[in-house]
Amino acid sequence: MAVTTIEPFVRNAWYVAAWPEELEKGLLARTIMNEPIVLYRDANGKVGALEDRCCHRGAPLTHGKVVQEGLQCGYHGLIYDTNGECVVIPGQKNVPREARVKSYPIVERQGFIWIWMGDAALADTAKLVDFPIHDMPEKFPHRKAMFHMKCNYMLMIDNLMDLTHLGYVHTKTIGGNPATHVAADMDITPTPTGVHFIRWMLDCIPPPTYQKGANFKGRVDRWQEFEYVAPASVLQWSGALDIGKGAQANRDQDGFHLRLYHGATPETENTFFYFWSTANGYRQDDPQATEDMYNEIYPTFLEDKEIMEVQHARVILNPERALVPIRADGALTLARRALRRMYDDEQAQLGQAAE
Amino acid sequence: MAVTTIEPFVRNAWYVAAWPEELEKGLLARTIMNEPIVLYRDANGKVGALEDRCCHRGAPLTHGKVVQEGLQCGYHGLIYDTNGECVVIPGQKNVPREARVKSYPIVERQGFIWIWMGDAALADTAKLVDFPIHDMPEKFPHRKAMFHMKCNYMLMIDNLMDLTHLGYVHTKTIGGNPATHVAADMDITPTPTGVHFIRWMLDCIPPPTYQKGANFKGRVDRWQEFEYVAPASVLQWSGALDIGKGAQANRDQDGFHLRLYHGATPETENTFFYFWSTANGYRQDDPQATEDMYNEIYPTFLEDKEIMEVQHARVILNPERALVPIRADGALTLARRALRRMYDDEQAQLGQAAE
Amino acid sequence: MAVTTIEPFVRNAWYVAAWPEELEKGLLARTIMNEPIVLYRDANGKVGALEDRCCHRGAPLTHGKVVQEGLQCGYHGLIYDTNGECVVIPGQKNVPREARVKSYPIVERQGFIWIWMGDAALADTAKLVDFPIHDMPEKFPHRKAMFHMKCNYMLMIDNLMDLTHLGYVHTKTIGGNPATHVAADMDITPTPTGVHFIRWMLDCIPPPTYQKGANFKGRVDRWQEFEYVAPASVLQWSGALDIGKGAQANRDQDGFHLRLYHGATPETENTFFYFWSTANGYRQDDPQATEDMYNEIYPTFLEDKEIMEVQHARVILNPERALVPIRADGALTLARRALRRMYDDEQAQLGQAAE
Repeated sequence: MAVTTIEPFVRNAWYVAAWPEELEKGLLARTIMNEPIVLYRDANGKVGALEDRCCHRGAPLTHGKVVQEGLQCGYHGLIYDTNGECVVIPGQKNVPREARVKSYPIVERQGFIWIWMGDAALADTAKLVDFPIHDMPEKFPHRKAMFHMKCNYMLMIDNLMDLTHLGYVHTKTIGGNPATHVAADMDITPTPTGVHFIRWMLDCIPPPTYQKGANFKGRVDRWQEFEYVAPASVLQWSGALDIGKGAQANRDQDGFHLRLYHGATPETENTFFYFWSTANGYRQDDPQATEDMYNEIYPTFLEDKEIMEVQHARVILNPERALVPIRADGALTLARRALRRMYDDEQAQLGQAAE
Repeated sequence: MAVTTIEPFVRNAWYVAAWPEELEKGLLARTIMNEPIVLYRDANGKVGALEDRCCHRGAPLTHGKVVQEGLQCGYHGLIYDTNGECVVIPGQKNVPREARVKSYPIVERQGFIWIWMGDAALADTAKLVDFPIHDMPEKFPHRKAMFHMKCNYMLMIDNLMDLTHLGYVHTKTIGGNPATHVAADMDITPTPTGVHFIRWMLDCIPPPTYQKGANFKGRVDRWQEFEYVAPASVLQWSGALDIGKGAQANRDQDGFHLRLYHGATPETENTFFYFWSTANGYRQDDPQATEDMYNEIYPTFLEDKEIMEVQHARVILNPERALVPIRADGALTLARRALRRMYDDEQAQLGQAAE
Repeated sequence: MAVTTIEPFVRNAWYVAAWPEELEKGLLARTIMNEPIVLYRDANGKVGALEDRCCHRGAPLTHGKVVQEGLQCGYHGLIYDTNGECVVIPGQKNVPREARVKSYPIVERQGFIWIWMGDAALADTAKLVDFPIHDMPEKFPHRKAMFHMKCNYMLMIDNLMDLTHLGYVHTKTIGGNPATHVAADMDITPTPTGVHFIRWMLDCIPPPTYQKGANFKGRVDRWQEFEYVAPASVLQWSGALDIGKGAQANRDQDGFHLRLYHGATPETENTFFYFWSTANGYRQDDPQATEDMYNEIYPTFLEDKEIMEVQHARVILNPERALVPIRADGALTLARRALRRMYDDEQAQLGQAAE
């Protein structure tokens, strides 16, 4: 199967628009799938996502401000509610029907602000990715981050689906011996919404971070689990339990648990926002442990950022050009297939609607 | 009427090419309507405007210098007169007829250097905007400025034609209460060359700047007058006289008089040069008063620059997209109509010439 | 004859890819004729030039490193030999035939690394430019440099073919009196591979640099010799001998000898790499003399860089637009003809191959 690098956008899906924390500083200008959007919290605390262009003279609403009645344009004072309807035009009583801007479905849940980029009538909250970790601050204290990436968002999914890169990209950080990563047997399974893989290392010596993190005294059963949920999320659970606890039957016991969320929201074909969080599931009462893990992961992800960006610069020269698949591409290929299937379903649905 | 944002250039018209003061430092490179031009004063003090590209090997003439015979190219020494004719080619006696560059009609008058971007045969000085203020240093001491703007030039005309923006854009400077500006009744009149509007505030308390400026003791009759002269000039006269002087019958009496010139010269569709001047018509013997007014206006116009530039970034994404007119757009709409009429006349003339 | 400014690339020819010294710091990323290339020295010291894009996922090989088996991609560890064949894919035993990248013929000779950008089957070392100076460190101690130029590479050839620019461009450095350069009689001769010109100044006072350089006591016979070898090299020999030594019959005697190599390697249509070297053929035992000459020439060539770059900015606005030839363009015109002939021959050959 040909693995292309640049896929068309899937629009009928939820994407992370922002971390809620990003709205604390005021209006947020964010372009998603080439559409300039203003994200904000109105006077009642409700999150709004409007087209960032006033219907009157085209000024960006991000240069305005939140007032009691809604979001006020900073040029001539028109005010919009979170549905995008103009509710005030200074100097006139009647607001014509056409005075409105596009609004986007928004859901704030589990520490995410999700946005729906396609047909609003299809925006089904049942399709939201489920990641309850952010809502469990006692069991999973966490840190969030966002990187602006100069590459196509699917290069991040590729990156996470093929961990053999660890030994080459992360030589300065978590890399370790390349052979270990290459030799590791992954149990790869397609899912209805993407692909899942897990790798078990039974009865082994825990690495220093794990040992220090969970205060292991002896040998452990370790795992690395990744789930891609199309189009743009990867849920990661890395961990270890003392041997004898039956980790493979039940991982949800005291031990070392690192839970990560990875989200890729396309800004353009050539850029995206990388939202990630890392949760400390081992020394929950120690804020420094959460901080230390964040500080360990941060430079590692910057290494990924660098290689993905230079990779993108090459593939974009001729995105149609063939790539040569190798044995390590198993999960990557399934992930790309899941995305393509989602896209094809969307197109089929559009076709039916047009009939 | 649909109000589009990006209009085609009117070429058969005078535009401000430069302030004369700008030529004091030597050759001036300035692109107007996408044409690179060198502006300079020759050895006899005459202003020249030539295509900024030597006919020999294409080097920009702005890298040359003025010599006795004319403007000398800095690459191989060819010399041009202000008509664009090559008068010297080093190393050869005969200068072929094709050795010439395009020259532009130039008029230096009333403290402006005007350039004609269209058919030179039609360059009629009777069509120059009349603004004698710069020639009256005793009655109107003034200061000049030029901003390089990253937006279409007509956004500046729009801006000046709708003063309701004052309360939103200029909150940090001259804004005041938005409601005042929105409620103000403008007397708007189309003119043969554009649009004129004036707003009278009779028998009112003068604002602090006016009070201090003209030393008013009591109430005044105030006015704000703007005239758009297509394609690219706006003449402003703001002022006040003591009540009882009959301001509406005769404004030309001692009092507070602020005269501004606003000129927009397109560099490209997406950029322009904003030439403006502000004249002190109230404390003419006090240079500091002229300076103070300039320093008060300068940051205000930077606020306009910012909002216009971000507005442009939005409208340029799809210049054909509809805008929603509001009640405050009266003068703006007439100004756009005047420009469009001028453009249509020019096209009709071109059509006749082609018949 | 119309002298156009932007010529199509001649591909079946050797170009300077790099100075050997540039490879000492590791992998070198260099785009030539729009093709991203990685230049490197493998574990055996052999120079490789490969397409800078791994066949697996498109990552640039310049982000990898040299290992014993070859050049290793920095993303997933694939290794290539200098022929571009993949010799190692981590995690699998068989390497499929399609796992390879394009390689370019490379010759390291006479202190140059030459690359062939066309059909590898035609890469004939007999077509290499002969410049033995770099291999004669005792007779010609030298310094090398490389400038990244923001203009079409042929503007550099033009520049060197018309020395009348010296009096206008180099007024701050070596310019001297423009009239001298313009009046100089050049003996211009077409050659099978380009054009040659020489200018003799017999029985004259040597300029200060020459006097100091070769310790002349009296008058000298001087010459300036330039040879353009299409597509992209210019060999320069400037010098002087004491009068009476018969310089015109035999220049190869003790005196003042300055040998320069100028090479232009297109990066894109709008940029190139300017490789130049200057050899001290007069005070060979004095390293400071070599250094002094280099330091004298360096700022002069920066002056050329500046004028060529602004020239390019103009001509690229409309590369098809006519230029007006002048008398001083003799050698330039012959050089352009030689390049065009080379290009036409290449096209004819391609046509035959296609029949």
